[in-house]
Amino acid sequence: MNVLIVFAHPEPMSFGRALKDRAVGALQAAGHQVEVSDLYAMGFNPVASAQDFTERRFPDALQYDREQKHATAHHAFSDDIQQEIDKLQACDMLILQFPLWWFSTPAIMKGWIDRVFVNGLVYGSGRRFDAGGMKGKRAMVSITTACYPEMVEPDGLLAHLDINLWHLQHGTLAYAGFDVLAPFAAWSIHYTTPERRSGYLDEYAKRLSGIENETPMPTHPLADFGKDWRMLPGIEPRTVGHRRPLVKPA
Amino acid sequence: MNVLIVFAHPEPMSFGRALKDRAVGALQAAGHQVEVSDLYAMGFNPVASAQDFTERRFPDALQYDREQKHATAHHAFSDDIQQEIDKLQACDMLILQFPLWWFSTPAIMKGWIDRVFVNGLVYGSGRRFDAGGMKGKRAMVSITTACYPEMVEPDGLLAHLDINLWHLQHGTLAYAGFDVLAPFAAWSIHYTTPERRSGYLDEYAKRLSGIENETPMPTHPLADFGKDWRMLPGIEPRTVGHRRPLVKPA
Repeated sequence: MNVLIVFAHPEPMSFGRALKDRAVGALQAAGHQVEVSDLYAMGFNPVASAQDFTERRFPDALQYDREQKHATAHHAFSDDIQQEIDKLQACDMLILQFPLWWFSTPAIMKGWIDRVFVNGLVYGSGRRFDAGGMKGKRAMVSITTACYPEMVEPDGLLAHLDINLWHLQHGTLAYAGFDVLAPFAAWSIHYTTPERRSGYLDEYAKRLSGIENETPMPTHPLADFGKDWRMLPGIEPRTVGHRRPLVKPA
Repeated sequence: MNVLIVFAHPEPMSFGRALKDRAVGALQAAGHQVEVSDLYAMGFNPVASAQDFTERRFPDALQYDREQKHATAHHAFSDDIQQEIDKLQACDMLILQFPLWWFSTPAIMKGWIDRVFVNGLVYGSGRRFDAGGMKGKRAMVSITTACYPEMVEPDGLLAHLDINLWHLQHGTLAYAGFDVLAPFAAWSIHYTTPERRSGYLDEYAKRLSGIENETPMPTHPLADFGKDWRMLPGIEPRTVGHRRPLVKPA
């Protein structure tokens, strides 16, 4: 596979960086090609604006998603966006590696999504879920966090991790058409021992060495919903968002 | 009340801007003081980095949250952050107004949260939920979206709106200690008539005129969880993230 790792961390010596480097090694050792977008090192601009387009369909007022659609059709993206789009199109698997900040990506990575997941290619005109622009590709979220795993169990203080990541794993990656794999998490990272950190690196490398065979998390195909966008009668909800986990099993 | 509206939209003529302006008018008419942080107009920098601190506790490697804690104690934030912290501390209610992009905030607003919700003041050292730094203040999310409301019903294509907003409403605002009100949404905004838009403005103004008396959404106090961060026996889960909603009422 061609694997694109999009990586964000403000500190070049971070444990997140070590995970990213280990991922590159493990994936290459398994015969994959790896491309890395290190957003902090690139000085990536996360702020979507009118400067993202070299020509405009509606020059008087910016409708960002409609200009994305026009720019997709007319190759009218700024260079920094087009370079990332090219990497995204070339990949068979996308890994988003970041420290979990407020249960989401750091702003620099949110901006990569805002500006690179473009209308007319990734989404729009019916492109979503099993008709999404990224159909056939895999994606995985890889986080470091100060959280303890017990906090993000179904009955944990913060509710299930996948509920916290729903906007990203379902609303972004699955929406775009990716087959989304279970997230990888290195927990309570401020308080781990060097041995535990080393264990996380080994665990991550081992998991990535067979990643092309992993079964993705369940998503509903569009056909499970009616014209009113509601799940059809007889369909058994099988995502964590539609089927909330049993908080207290009887 | 002192109300802080943090607003993000790349187009100065947007309907989101009209909502923000109407909110300012309605809140002032009801006797409140209103402060606005218009992030695009301010050119707000959303990228958390070492430059956010005028002195460092650990100068060799950036541990962002630990430096936040140090900077809170030593008044060592960069000016752009300190100005926003001052507004946040002065407010009784925070409104986040933005176009819903990938089921979250635009990057420029995520960066406002990353950089302004600081350790030692908003969170950290046990500050969370009913012990959060923002306890006693109210917060509300106000979105414009291309989504149809049916898509974010419990059995909708995207699952419940509050599941999509969980990371923000629960993981960020409630975590920080805010009493979080139900979100305001202007739906399928690309396809509305001028009359419907005008209706949204009126609806929003009407709601804001009595906002100080609205009952917040349910959140669990810390006392509902044990030392293992799991909900205690006998507690009835009552948030959308913890409580399994009825997907298909029998």
